[in-house]
Amino acid sequence: MCLVTPTTGQTITCKAAVAWGPKAPLVIEEIQVEPPQAQEVRIKITHTSLCHSDVTFWEAPVEVFPRIFGHEAAGIVESVGEGVLDLKPGDHVIPVFTGECRNCKYCKSPRTNICANYAVDALRGTMKSDGRTRFSIQGKPIFHFMGTSTFSEYTVVDQAQVVKVDPTAPLDKICLLGCGIATGIGAVWKTAKVEAGASVAVFGLGAVGLAVIAGAKIAGASRIIAVDLNPAKFAKAKVFGATDFLNPKEHDKAIQCVIQEMTGGGVDYSFECVGNTSVMRSAYESCQPGWGKSVIVGVDGSNKMLEINPLEFFSGRIWTASVFGGFKCKSDLPDLVDKYMSKELEYDEMITHTRPFSRINEAFSLLQKGESLRCVIEVEA
Amino acid sequence: MCLVTPTTGQTITCKAAVAWGPKAPLVIEEIQVEPPQAQEVRIKITHTSLCHSDVTFWEAPVEVFPRIFGHEAAGIVESVGEGVLDLKPGDHVIPVFTGECRNCKYCKSPRTNICANYAVDALRGTMKSDGRTRFSIQGKPIFHFMGTSTFSEYTVVDQAQVVKVDPTAPLDKICLLGCGIATGIGAVWKTAKVEAGASVAVFGLGAVGLAVIAGAKIAGASRIIAVDLNPAKFAKAKVFGATDFLNPKEHDKAIQCVIQEMTGGGVDYSFECVGNTSVMRSAYESCQPGWGKSVIVGVDGSNKMLEINPLEFFSGRIWTASVFGGFKCKSDLPDLVDKYMSKELEYDEMITHTRPFSRINEAFSLLQKGESLRCVIEVEA
Repeated sequence: MCLVTPTTGQTITCKAAVAWGPKAPLVIEEIQVEPPQAQEVRIKITHTSLCHSDVTFWEAPVEVFPRIFGHEAAGIVESVGEGVLDLKPGDHVIPVFTGECRNCKYCKSPRTNICANYAVDALRGTMKSDGRTRFSIQGKPIFHFMGTSTFSEYTVVDQAQVVKVDPTAPLDKICLLGCGIATGIGAVWKTAKVEAGASVAVFGLGAVGLAVIAGAKIAGASRIIAVDLNPAKFAKAKVFGATDFLNPKEHDKAIQCVIQEMTGGGVDYSFECVGNTSVMRSAYESCQPGWGKSVIVGVDGSNKMLEINPLEFFSGRIWTASVFGGFKCKSDLPDLVDKYMSKELEYDEMITHTRPFSRINEAFSLLQKGESLRCVIEVEA
Repeated sequence: MCLVTPTTGQTITCKAAVAWGPKAPLVIEEIQVEPPQAQEVRIKITHTSLCHSDVTFWEAPVEVFPRIFGHEAAGIVESVGEGVLDLKPGDHVIPVFTGECRNCKYCKSPRTNICANYAVDALRGTMKSDGRTRFSIQGKPIFHFMGTSTFSEYTVVDQAQVVKVDPTAPLDKICLLGCGIATGIGAVWKTAKVEAGASVAVFGLGAVGLAVIAGAKIAGASRIIAVDLNPAKFAKAKVFGATDFLNPKEHDKAIQCVIQEMTGGGVDYSFECVGNTSVMRSAYESCQPGWGKSVIVGVDGSNKMLEINPLEFFSGRIWTASVFGGFKCKSDLPDLVDKYMSKELEYDEMITHTRPFSRINEAFSLLQKGESLRCVIEVEA
């Protein structure tokens, strides 16, 4: 087995889609990618898909530019830095935006997927070990994103954020498990723990919402209510298992009242997959008092506050949130890949578009217009 | 066995402590108590204690006056109305402000102690069956409180709110299980489900907070941090099992920061037993990210809202609340009485004062001044 590739220890010059500023179309540039330092891994990205969070932070007027976005991808290890024991060149991997160091008190607890050392930090643009970037263009540093930066032929990622998976799994499909699909499935299985026969409401029918529906169907939910302002999304929701379809625009009363009436008090579980405080309230109130659990999956970047009368908590409803579906990346993701391979988990319908790397900006406009669920970008020529 | 007492079916004239208006000292009056209607029970109250909620609603400028307060008591069944099958004259009972009809979907679920038919309603002043009162003074109706109205020698209560208990248990002690003690103990055992070795913080060292401490000690908590602005309360907290004592006035930084530092991130469980939104936030932030659970037990009557950035939910902390400790009154309260009898649960130290019925107003001033934990009023001469 060859553990040293010809490029090991060398700086690689390759193509990457660089965002030079907020909302500026990405530019395919020749960049230099340094070798991985200790505890780091250099990955040849084969496929990356575009997730809403990439768009959110690409649009954000923050200082972390120029930057290489991308956090939902798959690829093959090119080389590893010192001290990386569980990965080697040639391994098929999924990089993940939230790591698992296996050493902190959170990683050692089965109750959370927080990692004290590799928590999500969308504003960090450098590597943890030395606060420097591994990307540059003729000496000018290019910043990282989420520790993954998968819009590049090669990227460097901390080993705690790199998950080895079944090498026979198709990289152009399992790239979706790097964020959206795992987030939706895990919100149902790990965070809410939906049981057979339960009723569920899902707010927002993007890829994450559809993954919630798929997860709920696999869990045996008896009723899955799909809610979206765009009725064009209902057909796909039905494919994944939704049983009821609600467009809030078509009702005179608040949608939570409609759901309460349909279900005799509320659903057992609701999921907010939009990222809007007003939808979060609707989802919470759609739940059954006594035991209903509402899971926030969408991220509201507006910094708006939720207002709660503390007496509302006495209803017995539970309000919580889920990051990466509560999955610990290294411990849990290989099993999701296996479930995909055994067809226990199917989501190919989620991939509505593919584009070559050179046309990555089309993926942005498709997602922004709501025309795509997931567009897979073929990074490897 | 005598199922008919001489007073069965008769209106009883007896003494009650009547509140004629908000904040008006109670007046011991001769009142008429009608016989119980179908599904109702007339109880001879032997002992009642004073709980903060009595004071809260006695002070509230609502229209439900004149009124007989009291909701933490014990007594003996005098007679029962038609259709009452599980209670008979002579039974020792505890009336409870939150009922258990055993028929609604909540009562049939093990997941909640909500009852659709006998939910807490502090503003209702009449009986559910006919919207009338059973109390009057020379024909003028006197309103009920919480369905219990235990500041009276005789009261009429819906059978769903009356719990039969061990007749050998001392009524002057088990009256406390009608609200405060059960609320605190249940918040730990049923709502939070504190496990052996866990760390706990308790905000507010009144009777409910002390009951939380007692419950946490019995559950095997390894560290119990007692928080109060009044350091005079720490001695009693120690008696019940607190291991650490914090007075927020003695610290320069927010008390949640102190607790986070003491515990390396936060406690596993925190309990708010004050009823103040600002303390609720401190209690929430005192919890360990990842799995910490904060239970709101105190009721904030000010209608102030809690503000939460939805991103805070991604910390993995859980925020919830507990009514009557999550106990279903009929199903769970007899067991608490048995635990008191077997000394598994001890709380006699909570009774700091006793007063004859004629001096009931002293119980109010003792509680308002923070001088008493529980004052037991001997209703039966």
